[in-house]
Amino acid sequence: MIEFIGFVAAILTTLSFVPQALHTIKTKDTSGISLWMYVIFTSGIFLWLVYGFLITNWPLIIANLVTFVLAATILIFKMKYK
Amino acid sequence: MIEFIGFVAAILTTLSFVPQALHTIKTKDTSGISLWMYVIFTSGIFLWLVYGFLITNWPLIIANLVTFVLAATILIFKMKYK
Repeated sequence: MIEFIGFVAAILTTLSFVPQALHTIKTKDTSGISLWMYVIFTSGIFLWLVYGFLITNWPLIIANLVTFVLAATILIFKMKYK
Repeated sequence: MIEFIGFVAAILTTLSFVPQALHTIKTKDTSGISLWMYVIFTSGIFLWLVYGFLITNWPLIIANLVTFVLAATILIFKMKYK
């Protein structure tokens, strides 16, 4: 049961970037988005991914790979359409 | 060294919400922010916090408590100034 709560938490925090990425791609409206948030966040997620590979933890690798792609997409749009 | 990478990753992903929260509080501009991202993300962080308490993991509790306050602030501004 405790592990299930952690599992749902991981799914939610990973998937939450899907509506943001879709919203950003569709509207190209990035005015309310902080550039620094996505610079720092994408770097942090990249390090989580490296950490996941180093300790060979597949849930960590998969979750952070998905989040990295979504966060990097938002970051690129922010830099392109600011 | 491996643990250090995980530690830096955790610090970056937690602190990344500081510039976003400050930006949102200062400008009240939430047009580019996805409501659903923050609904899902804040719920996920709350579950991470519950999970941290259940397994008594203080780094998890502290990191997610900070992120929860920041994400909930952004969510409240998004709902108020959409």
